[in-house]
Amino acid sequence: MSEYDVLCIGNAIVDIIAQCDDGFLVENGITKGAMNLIDAERAELLYSRMGPAIEASGGSAGNTAAGVASLGGRAAYFGKVSSDHLGAVYGHDIRAQGVAFDTRPLSGEPPTARSMIFVTPDGERSMNTYLGACVELGPEDVEVEKATGAKVTYFEGYLWDPPRAKEAIRLAAKHAHSAGREVSMTLSDSFCVDRYREEFLDLMRSGTVDIVFANESELKALYQTSSFDAGLEAIRQDCKLAAVTRSELGSVIISPSETLKVDAIEIEKLVDTTGAGDLYAAGFLFGYTSGRALDDCGRLGSLAAGLVIQQIGPRPRVDLRVAAQQARLL
Amino acid sequence: MSEYDVLCIGNAIVDIIAQCDDGFLVENGITKGAMNLIDAERAELLYSRMGPAIEASGGSAGNTAAGVASLGGRAAYFGKVSSDHLGAVYGHDIRAQGVAFDTRPLSGEPPTARSMIFVTPDGERSMNTYLGACVELGPEDVEVEKATGAKVTYFEGYLWDPPRAKEAIRLAAKHAHSAGREVSMTLSDSFCVDRYREEFLDLMRSGTVDIVFANESELKALYQTSSFDAGLEAIRQDCKLAAVTRSELGSVIISPSETLKVDAIEIEKLVDTTGAGDLYAAGFLFGYTSGRALDDCGRLGSLAAGLVIQQIGPRPRVDLRVAAQQARLL
Repeated sequence: MSEYDVLCIGNAIVDIIAQCDDGFLVENGITKGAMNLIDAERAELLYSRMGPAIEASGGSAGNTAAGVASLGGRAAYFGKVSSDHLGAVYGHDIRAQGVAFDTRPLSGEPPTARSMIFVTPDGERSMNTYLGACVELGPEDVEVEKATGAKVTYFEGYLWDPPRAKEAIRLAAKHAHSAGREVSMTLSDSFCVDRYREEFLDLMRSGTVDIVFANESELKALYQTSSFDAGLEAIRQDCKLAAVTRSELGSVIISPSETLKVDAIEIEKLVDTTGAGDLYAAGFLFGYTSGRALDDCGRLGSLAAGLVIQQIGPRPRVDLRVAAQQARLL
Repeated sequence: MSEYDVLCIGNAIVDIIAQCDDGFLVENGITKGAMNLIDAERAELLYSRMGPAIEASGGSAGNTAAGVASLGGRAAYFGKVSSDHLGAVYGHDIRAQGVAFDTRPLSGEPPTARSMIFVTPDGERSMNTYLGACVELGPEDVEVEKATGAKVTYFEGYLWDPPRAKEAIRLAAKHAHSAGREVSMTLSDSFCVDRYREEFLDLMRSGTVDIVFANESELKALYQTSSFDAGLEAIRQDCKLAAVTRSELGSVIISPSETLKVDAIEIEKLVDTTGAGDLYAAGFLFGYTSGRALDDCGRLGSLAAGLVIQQIGPRPRVDLRVAAQQARLL
């Protein structure tokens, strides 16, 4: 018996979200659509220039854990916050969603991570992340019984940015595989792929990772190709299963023997793309760990992603289980 | 020359917003649609039972100040936060909107006020407010040059809950009137009216307050009548100008010689009524202080209120000036 469907591991980050126009991004040297890493000083400068904001718990894998739980799956999370106000907010929000979260918080500095997210009128989000307490996540934070007890252990490529989180991932993957479980990752961001290409490929080719999530630009960055199809064929060789998202074009699921195309859902109004990939992974992994066919896993991913981009903030405020039932996916 | 169009004075509160069903309100003894005052202990209990939330700066008069500024008006604000994380967030958000905010923060306990707002599927909000640092607002926080330099000084009836804020209001009103300015208040909440009926009536009848904002239930509570029309006639005797809001029925503006009815705007989907009354006051007072006809003031109020109830959170995330121009109100 597994205790959890999905264990997610990631940078525990509170999002600070404001609107801006494209000129603001240019003036402030923010790469549009990307996750820009910043230090404490730049965080203060950008915040002083940021418009009125709202705060919402985020973090890529944390959003995925919340999505799995909202669908009715059993989710757990590892991520490092500090014992400050934002850390308390982070813990509240993820536990209130029903996710098991027991990583010991730091007592003291650095503070809980925050990402200033600027949403442009086209709905695209540009993130500016101060990692704060996330830099302290390490192998000592791996709870063995969760890593061995989850059907899938899922982590974000962003974890290669802090210094010791990769050690935690390798340890968690070892525990998971020793218990006959599977390990999954998201490539997170094309610039992140550029930073860690060889290590990510090694994770896949060494069998440390079984299931890979990517969007089109991350796939192309991984294989340094401008051809989407070439990227698909390459990733087919490198892992057991891959799901590649393409925004309004839906997603493509790649297994050794199959190529499945899944449509995106129709949306009324694109508000904020934050969390789209995270929620796709949530829907997919919920479907996967509940034994559904791969195309149904993709449809659950499309639904969860399509709902989160029609609101501000990275975690859906609708009950995903009810939404999936209404869409006749459950 | 006036330095400001509107000076707003209120409880400086960060909103913590989550969805819930009606059963949750009943189980937890929360009066639906009302502002429920709670202590620190109950705040902790309710937070432990609250679902995943988002945080956004709020406070009734703070929302009004933000709305005036978003319309292009010159706004100032008095309100007490602590020098903690939420206080910094509060200060950031209101200043980033262009509001002058210089009230000295408390150093230390109690912490910045927060209101846990539960939004039910019908869009109604039920607030649970821990006043925290707001209890320290007093006459020493009245900045004379702002009170004398603003065309209208506007405050919330909620300020009768903390112990010394009413002294600040009486002092600010004295300064405003000494400079030939006007003073305005909102009745805030029907239960608040029940608590302070005689004092509110005295503020109006003594001429301390010139312009009154109320919704239908607050008006009825003030005059202890079930007749809306009787309430309108009563308030006509008690102040120079009143604007009474009626949700989807629009608003009624009452002057000694006129009764003007103003429609609500058409909305696509009611999401969260938080801030509706505050933004009506913002639109009205922006119009009033820029010399517009009373019915146009009401239309600006309807527009601002109608926009804020189609989103989560108490301050509109659209540029109200652009929206008002598109609606041909500016």
